[in-house]
Amino acid sequence: MAGNRFGTLFSITTFGESHGAAIGVVIDGCPAGLQITSEEIQAELDRRKPGQSHITTQRKETDTVEILSGIFEGKTTAAPIALVIKNEDQRSKDYTHLKDTFRPSHADFTYAEKYGNRDYRGGGRSSARETAARVAAGAVAKKLLLHYGITIQGYVSSVYNIAVTKSYAELDLSKTENNIVRCPDEALAQQMIELIEAVRKAGDTVGGTVSCVIKNCKAGLGEPVFDKLHADLAKAMMSINATKGFEYGSGFEGVLLKGSAHNDAFEKQAEKIATKTNHSGGIQGGISNGMDIYFRVAFKPVATIMQQQESINTSGETIMLEGKGRHDPCVLPRAVPIVEAMAALVIADHLLRNKTAKL
Amino acid sequence: MAGNRFGTLFSITTFGESHGAAIGVVIDGCPAGLQITSEEIQAELDRRKPGQSHITTQRKETDTVEILSGIFEGKTTAAPIALVIKNEDQRSKDYTHLKDTFRPSHADFTYAEKYGNRDYRGGGRSSARETAARVAAGAVAKKLLLHYGITIQGYVSSVYNIAVTKSYAELDLSKTENNIVRCPDEALAQQMIELIEAVRKAGDTVGGTVSCVIKNCKAGLGEPVFDKLHADLAKAMMSINATKGFEYGSGFEGVLLKGSAHNDAFEKQAEKIATKTNHSGGIQGGISNGMDIYFRVAFKPVATIMQQQESINTSGETIMLEGKGRHDPCVLPRAVPIVEAMAALVIADHLLRNKTAKL
Amino acid sequence: MAGNRFGTLFSITTFGESHGAAIGVVIDGCPAGLQITSEEIQAELDRRKPGQSHITTQRKETDTVEILSGIFEGKTTAAPIALVIKNEDQRSKDYTHLKDTFRPSHADFTYAEKYGNRDYRGGGRSSARETAARVAAGAVAKKLLLHYGITIQGYVSSVYNIAVTKSYAELDLSKTENNIVRCPDEALAQQMIELIEAVRKAGDTVGGTVSCVIKNCKAGLGEPVFDKLHADLAKAMMSINATKGFEYGSGFEGVLLKGSAHNDAFEKQAEKIATKTNHSGGIQGGISNGMDIYFRVAFKPVATIMQQQESINTSGETIMLEGKGRHDPCVLPRAVPIVEAMAALVIADHLLRNKTAKL
Amino acid sequence: MAGNRFGTLFSITTFGESHGAAIGVVIDGCPAGLQITSEEIQAELDRRKPGQSHITTQRKETDTVEILSGIFEGKTTAAPIALVIKNEDQRSKDYTHLKDTFRPSHADFTYAEKYGNRDYRGGGRSSARETAARVAAGAVAKKLLLHYGITIQGYVSSVYNIAVTKSYAELDLSKTENNIVRCPDEALAQQMIELIEAVRKAGDTVGGTVSCVIKNCKAGLGEPVFDKLHADLAKAMMSINATKGFEYGSGFEGVLLKGSAHNDAFEKQAEKIATKTNHSGGIQGGISNGMDIYFRVAFKPVATIMQQQESINTSGETIMLEGKGRHDPCVLPRAVPIVEAMAALVIADHLLRNKTAKL
Repeated sequence: MAGNRFGTLFSITTFGESHGAAIGVVIDGCPAGLQITSEEIQAELDRRKPGQSHITTQRKETDTVEILSGIFEGKTTAAPIALVIKNEDQRSKDYTHLKDTFRPSHADFTYAEKYGNRDYRGGGRSSARETAARVAAGAVAKKLLLHYGITIQGYVSSVYNIAVTKSYAELDLSKTENNIVRCPDEALAQQMIELIEAVRKAGDTVGGTVSCVIKNCKAGLGEPVFDKLHADLAKAMMSINATKGFEYGSGFEGVLLKGSAHNDAFEKQAEKIATKTNHSGGIQGGISNGMDIYFRVAFKPVATIMQQQESINTSGETIMLEGKGRHDPCVLPRAVPIVEAMAALVIADHLLRNKTAKL
Repeated sequence: MAGNRFGTLFSITTFGESHGAAIGVVIDGCPAGLQITSEEIQAELDRRKPGQSHITTQRKETDTVEILSGIFEGKTTAAPIALVIKNEDQRSKDYTHLKDTFRPSHADFTYAEKYGNRDYRGGGRSSARETAARVAAGAVAKKLLLHYGITIQGYVSSVYNIAVTKSYAELDLSKTENNIVRCPDEALAQQMIELIEAVRKAGDTVGGTVSCVIKNCKAGLGEPVFDKLHADLAKAMMSINATKGFEYGSGFEGVLLKGSAHNDAFEKQAEKIATKTNHSGGIQGGISNGMDIYFRVAFKPVATIMQQQESINTSGETIMLEGKGRHDPCVLPRAVPIVEAMAALVIADHLLRNKTAKL
Repeated sequence: MAGNRFGTLFSITTFGESHGAAIGVVIDGCPAGLQITSEEIQAELDRRKPGQSHITTQRKETDTVEILSGIFEGKTTAAPIALVIKNEDQRSKDYTHLKDTFRPSHADFTYAEKYGNRDYRGGGRSSARETAARVAAGAVAKKLLLHYGITIQGYVSSVYNIAVTKSYAELDLSKTENNIVRCPDEALAQQMIELIEAVRKAGDTVGGTVSCVIKNCKAGLGEPVFDKLHADLAKAMMSINATKGFEYGSGFEGVLLKGSAHNDAFEKQAEKIATKTNHSGGIQGGISNGMDIYFRVAFKPVATIMQQQESINTSGETIMLEGKGRHDPCVLPRAVPIVEAMAALVIADHLLRNKTAKL
Repeated sequence: MAGNRFGTLFSITTFGESHGAAIGVVIDGCPAGLQITSEEIQAELDRRKPGQSHITTQRKETDTVEILSGIFEGKTTAAPIALVIKNEDQRSKDYTHLKDTFRPSHADFTYAEKYGNRDYRGGGRSSARETAARVAAGAVAKKLLLHYGITIQGYVSSVYNIAVTKSYAELDLSKTENNIVRCPDEALAQQMIELIEAVRKAGDTVGGTVSCVIKNCKAGLGEPVFDKLHADLAKAMMSINATKGFEYGSGFEGVLLKGSAHNDAFEKQAEKIATKTNHSGGIQGGISNGMDIYFRVAFKPVATIMQQQESINTSGETIMLEGKGRHDPCVLPRAVPIVEAMAALVIADHLLRNKTAKL
């Protein structure tokens, strides 16, 4: 297996399985001199951790981060930052019945085909538990961005058929953390919560979308041709478990505008050049233009349902599969910090890469 | 500038500006022993080249490929394959008036901000002309895939508000090349062509979507965690000029299914394990499962319109910009071979990467 | 800081400081299905650990390895293998006096210049303690090589002016571990030990050379042009602390042969094509040819001496520096497993890379 | 084949075979705004080109460079710089007799084993002709370094048994280009030339060493742990055809000094911190310390000799091989610009990498 590393200059390598000893991440390339505490990292992990509300999985993990290296006297030294989170509440026995089973729309079958030796306990390496390592690394990236005034804010913009129709600019994003579903529109948030509760009772699951906005990112980030800023954001988002789609700026809807309506006219503002509209989503030619960067990510419904499903076992025989274990009926609330973390990693990487653009 | 390289094992580096001496690509990592001719590469370039029909730009480029290295006695030697396409019909004077101008929704402003020294002739490096190099490299990747029985087929699935509503499985994709807009539904194709003609007359432009399906890809391609097959496809597609969104399998629509409906049940077929439905889009846990891989890409309307637009110049003064040059009113027909090429590059890379998955 | 990662397909990322919480490594890219135990890793670490004999540093570290991920039921799963070694005997107070001091021929000054925030405790990230992580990873690589029949054997070929003059082929390398200096010539070994003891008493240090031979490596490993097998070996060796030179095959001495004497004539042997001599060191054109690969690495004398030295502090003032702490008078005995580990990592990486050379 | 790319931020990809249409290089990552002309590149190529004197190969190549991209109005734009050199004097027929032959100490056998389909004309991709592409790219890197005041000077320090015994600091390196063998000691240069003439007449070949010094490189370049500045220099040098060894600073000789003699004492000079001696070769802990960086590279005698040699053919039969073609009796004079080019590429890359070391 490769592909456990992300980023060019600000890069991370994650490790760990759902039911192994620990998960973690090594950050390589963070500049020296950045103040960061384990509390700041923990705060982000707490937003992602299981059991944080009654609409998430009830697996009990404190997700306590331990810093093994790279921080000295409260500041980064530029040495690799190793962060480890011990697994505590592994009920691996819950998975013994899955040893020889391929769960529908999970990675069981593809891992078995590709690797042969498969850690079947809770999905092993394919578990979304891996994303805790991303969130921990993302906390460091966020702190670096803050040094440059850049902020990242994600929120749940739809659950199943309940969707926020307003643009991010019309919402008060500071309300996002006020409810357990992380939707800044409180009326819709309430509906989403009720929907998730009902779906859980029915032993079913739902998906939805996370929207995200990056503010105060100066012009110049992103590398043509292949490492366009939105291409790297797309890859980052699509590497998160359960994602099905990515769009930025006008997105798929932009297709329904003609060029004369879609073009973002420039205008000179007090201190900078801005655009009157922002269908470009803050990125032109793959490079940030100083406007807000915004995008949206689709998450499928969780594959583990508490219903009987027909499937097959490793011998190719048809079996009936019963849902067990502790799972989220909807990943969206916990996906918000993951989306933010991945966005922060992309922007941090491009911030560093941009330092060598010209003499 | 970095980011001109794509791929890990089967990798390409492209070069060249719209109005420079030539554009080209170096392929590094193609295995030895693959039969490939310049005619096969040329055939793909011809599908992308300007002036191929009255609904594309009238820039006259034969886009003739020259092979400089890497092929010996008709077969690859594993040495880098350098492919060069000379620029022939550069009317750089068409662009002199743009020297100090930032065209709306182009990369003029961001390149100027990032690099200072900007080749303003026809967009320079930011021009979609660069994608010819990708198509040339993609032709080699396609030939490699064919060696493993894998085929890739793209088609225009919508132009502005004219959309194919059938899934790829319900269409006869062999009809795609029968019309100049590359839509396999001939009635819709005719409507699309008429729309593009009307839009061109109005000096405006339209966008749309390209859909693509990859067939006969065996199970096991893709690398968790970050280099999931669909994450690499997403990046590949979003690196193409003018793209705004990517989705695979059930995509954004998948949000409107519950888990019980979205899950793809396994079934044992004659020789392999298959799924009854394919909301997964042929990829589970980031790894191909042997089913068809399919995805969809959104393209914005072309930014260059033949209408007056307000903009600003490099001094920050408001100016009126008039559309000049030879441009596509709609990039979709020419985008099809580009999407296919990028998909081929991703699959070829993962084919090679997969060779080291297990002992 | 970047550069904490090594390898292309079989790659490692190390982390940790001499006096931090722990050091460790994440291996990414090890194929699935390889049997490996923590005992096998520990055995290699024990060859490198401090305090193993009276001629090494007396720092007390058990260097106990903990496997955090990537091994399931005794075999690799292809998931990243995280290995952690806790630091136990950190006498960081020994280093307080060095906080504002630049020790001669150490990395104190260059780290301070480059990074600003410097972990001065025991050299921090620049400490050779980092190489324990390489040895742990190398143990996994060695096991992989063994699967292909490849073995790696290093030995001390000189300490100061006491040098083995015989070639590796004339020595009984199985005797290498019989003495604490790891020299297979027992008479010379005894002289080396006595020299090191005398040097230690004088508060001084000595360097030397490690030779290494790789056996049973089949033809075909190595990638022209830049990733020649010996170029990657050179980088691997020169990345080890305190190294000053690398040569393979005939090396610097080869300059004193004319082409007619230096060329290795081919001959057909029972099952394979071999060469009568091996000035090529088992590598031709950057690719292994099936003969023994052998090379030699120079290590400078340890920079920390137990004598007074003039130096300067961070304010640029001249100071007198007294040697403190627990240090090796000669790194050579402990360097052997490090050289072997780095060689194993290079060969393992090229074994995997070679799988994609031809159709 | 992979491994045709070198460098992390300032990176190059070379292509081309000895007797193909052309050789060339794509530079990716050069910052925008650097003034560079084709004449400056050509000047470096002229130092490497064949036929420049009677002691080099008589192959006639003008090695004329063509710039295909990346330079606009005399300055880099940060877009990839593609440089192409057409092959002109290919007497491929000279090589027909080698189609089925493995020349001793060449890459014929290993390429055949690894790739199957081998371009046997003049060594194909394994020919040192590839290094012209490096020299062209190195010219751009040198110009970038000059912007920062850094200069690189190589010279021939030995041919066979005729060796310069003085250190670089005792020589007048400005005399290096005054003679055709590129040795700054004119008496020794004359001896070297006579030796090469005699060796050529005897149909034999000789090797030697190139020494190189990098001046005015500020402190801070190099990345611990694996990408130490000297580790990257080692790899760069050992990737050049025919190299057998690398040493920097005190090198292999440094082994014969004790720590108390080898350590470089710091002293405060007018504007900077310097060391009284420089056994460290300008690099401490893998990072430049502001002193001169110097190193030495060993080149074996050219494998193609004009004498009869026993060898085998692809069927494993013993044959007699007669030397044909036009070859160098000694590569050293032409190796000097190659060594400089590779050194320039390493330093340029680390200059850019260093820009992200701290906040």
